[in-house]
Amino acid sequence: MFSSATSAGKTAKSERTRAHVRDLALRSFRERGYDATTIRRIATEAGISVGTTNYHFASKADLVQELYLDVQQQHRSAAEPLLAESSDLIDRLRIVYTTGLDQLGPYHAHAAEFVSAALAPRSGINPLAAESSFARDVTEGLFADAVAGARNAPPGPVTAELPRVLFLAHLLLAMYWVYDESPDQERTRRLLDRGLALLKLALPLARLPLLRRPLAELLATAGEIRP
Amino acid sequence: MFSSATSAGKTAKSERTRAHVRDLALRSFRERGYDATTIRRIATEAGISVGTTNYHFASKADLVQELYLDVQQQHRSAAEPLLAESSDLIDRLRIVYTTGLDQLGPYHAHAAEFVSAALAPRSGINPLAAESSFARDVTEGLFADAVAGARNAPPGPVTAELPRVLFLAHLLLAMYWVYDESPDQERTRRLLDRGLALLKLALPLARLPLLRRPLAELLATAGEIRP
Repeated sequence: MFSSATSAGKTAKSERTRAHVRDLALRSFRERGYDATTIRRIATEAGISVGTTNYHFASKADLVQELYLDVQQQHRSAAEPLLAESSDLIDRLRIVYTTGLDQLGPYHAHAAEFVSAALAPRSGINPLAAESSFARDVTEGLFADAVAGARNAPPGPVTAELPRVLFLAHLLLAMYWVYDESPDQERTRRLLDRGLALLKLALPLARLPLLRRPLAELLATAGEIRP
Repeated sequence: MFSSATSAGKTAKSERTRAHVRDLALRSFRERGYDATTIRRIATEAGISVGTTNYHFASKADLVQELYLDVQQQHRSAAEPLLAESSDLIDRLRIVYTTGLDQLGPYHAHAAEFVSAALAPRSGINPLAAESSFARDVTEGLFADAVAGARNAPPGPVTAELPRVLFLAHLLLAMYWVYDESPDQERTRRLLDRGLALLKLALPLARLPLLRRPLAELLATAGEIRP
């Protein structure tokens, strides 16, 4: 029993260290960006060895995955209570995209560094890479909820492809936002508004038998992108 | 006269050196990729000093701009004779996108390196950067020709935004292609086919007064993206 209490104490301490390293890394990514954040620097700040830091996070990519998870989980927390208030598909998509952009806000100054690193060959932080599946599943799940809870979602075959394609559209919107130097990135919000305005008008057309199948086929192929 | 002949000889020699360095760089980008290509390596291959190489091309970014220009000019040469044969907008767009993908072919193995470098902060090889305007103007001009020569282009306000947005769509298609590991990137060709099939069906809708203005507004905002 003494031994197991010690073991529990060790585990709790290890978990505190891990959480501390993680918090320092997330702050460093926000304040210094991707390029200037290193395992060595985080270890120094945490007052622990590089070896101990690597025990918790084998590479910088692992810390970026923590960042992704943090952003995606906060995204979900911000979106869910708002989603409870509307059953209109366009309103629900607006909620998910808007709260998604809100979470990215603090990272804007260094965002292009992350894009560049994420799109490098065999990058473990590409949002479409296998390594990013935990974080990606959170956001794709959020889009799936947005569609499933809407009274006016488009018909079957199109709906099946939507969560993945809406997630890809979220990545494109984020990319537009990265290079948006307008005050508070208001241009990105305008792009979103105008995209949703057009989607609202075009939504009834997705029900036309003539358009339904080619639309579903296009979305399915778009959704096949892999890094 | 003697002096001017010498000067002309010098100029001709300088131009030959420049063309030689450029050709070696383009081959190196194709065969070794962006990361492994350096001014120093090109200078060694050309049998000249780094200083002489830098006299012609101040940085690797300048050599990438030569690559862009080469690809864009070959794109135009491949597309123009085909464009002379059709006045249908969808056919003309298919010609420009298909010949554009054809030019990229030899660069596929290393393409993600170029994307990563191009999207880095303040990159001088971002296709939307000021430094890339010569190459960009060639391709945007090609899309402008594709639209202008079509008998069934959409009405005024939408048409004005089209060349820029079609060029952005070309960049997105290229990005899909970069991460497309299907044989000969046939999946990208399928995405293009399906996108054009849907566009063909949706084209008459762009004439509806209800949709015309919101569509033009969306395209205008999308076209405002800058690196």
